[in-house]
Amino acid sequence: MVLVLYAHPYADRSRANRALVRALDGLPGVEVRALYERYPDFSIDVAAEQAALARPRTIVVQHPLYWYAPPALLAMWCEKVLLHGWAFGEGGRALAGKRCLWAVTTGSPAEAYSAGGVHGATLEDLALPLRRTMALCGVEWLAPFVLHGARTQPRVELELAAARYRERLAALAARDARGGEAAP
Amino acid sequence: MVLVLYAHPYADRSRANRALVRALDGLPGVEVRALYERYPDFSIDVAAEQAALARPRTIVVQHPLYWYAPPALLAMWCEKVLLHGWAFGEGGRALAGKRCLWAVTTGSPAEAYSAGGVHGATLEDLALPLRRTMALCGVEWLAPFVLHGARTQPRVELELAAARYRERLAALAARDARGGEAAP
Repeated sequence: MVLVLYAHPYADRSRANRALVRALDGLPGVEVRALYERYPDFSIDVAAEQAALARPRTIVVQHPLYWYAPPALLAMWCEKVLLHGWAFGEGGRALAGKRCLWAVTTGSPAEAYSAGGVHGATLEDLALPLRRTMALCGVEWLAPFVLHGARTQPRVELELAAARYRERLAALAARDARGGEAAP
Repeated sequence: MVLVLYAHPYADRSRANRALVRALDGLPGVEVRALYERYPDFSIDVAAEQAALARPRTIVVQHPLYWYAPPALLAMWCEKVLLHGWAFGEGGRALAGKRCLWAVTTGSPAEAYSAGGVHGATLEDLALPLRRTMALCGVEWLAPFVLHGARTQPRVELELAAARYRERLAALAARDARGGEAAP
């Protein structure tokens, strides 16, 4: 099973993320958890979040890039949910052996995210905090799904990206189904 | 003038950050703005924050490293305060020409923050999102102030670090005073 942790502070105004999430409609073995919808006041239900993470073998972290990082609620989610003794440290093996797919949209074209580009950093560089977070929790890091230029992509390009996203998650869900659910 | 944006979600339980903040007591030209104290409910007063940024030439961003990144409220502060047309983009020059000092504490010893260390990344790598944020706003990035092993440093080491911090900020405040306040 694939769990999508979806974090968009302005989901109503989203073009790209909305298209990506919609593409997952009815996909077997894929569940979307909209964090901003669930916690508009930032009061995260830690027990509920930890319970939601028990079954999936694959965790997708989907969000727009905000100031080169995940949006605030996702930062808070990590702080509150990924607790010592649960996600890491002694006795902290709740996520070990799972996989993480980072699904990120950006506001600029691909070439802006390079050493010589306007943002002076690659997506791989900027992934580091989340990637190391997952590593400390024993979670395997998959090749990210990246959609650049979220606000300016023509509709047809968005639809193509959304189809690719659906395909990628379908493949992950199928692999998870073959491999059985996550070990307890 | 030096403005310290201080973001600690559990300031009461802090050892290292508390020692650093205390060391600034009575330091002329240095003002501490405790974000978690000001916005416990995450309702950031954008106009007040933008107004607070007008005078200082130097902005210190002080926080403990949480999951290899700034705490959630600081992420939200960037999202809400650093607006297009104000901090960046066309007409967005409010912070241009200022300087930023990243003052960060970590939970592990220095050697853990290296390519071969348990965290598999250097502090310089992990600074990238904040550093690029400042760069996009035209803010100069100063050599960071780093205090490793915040929870395990002996009291005397903390006091030495706090004294170095006070000295560093005093020098920045003196430079700012010589250079005049920030241009409007």
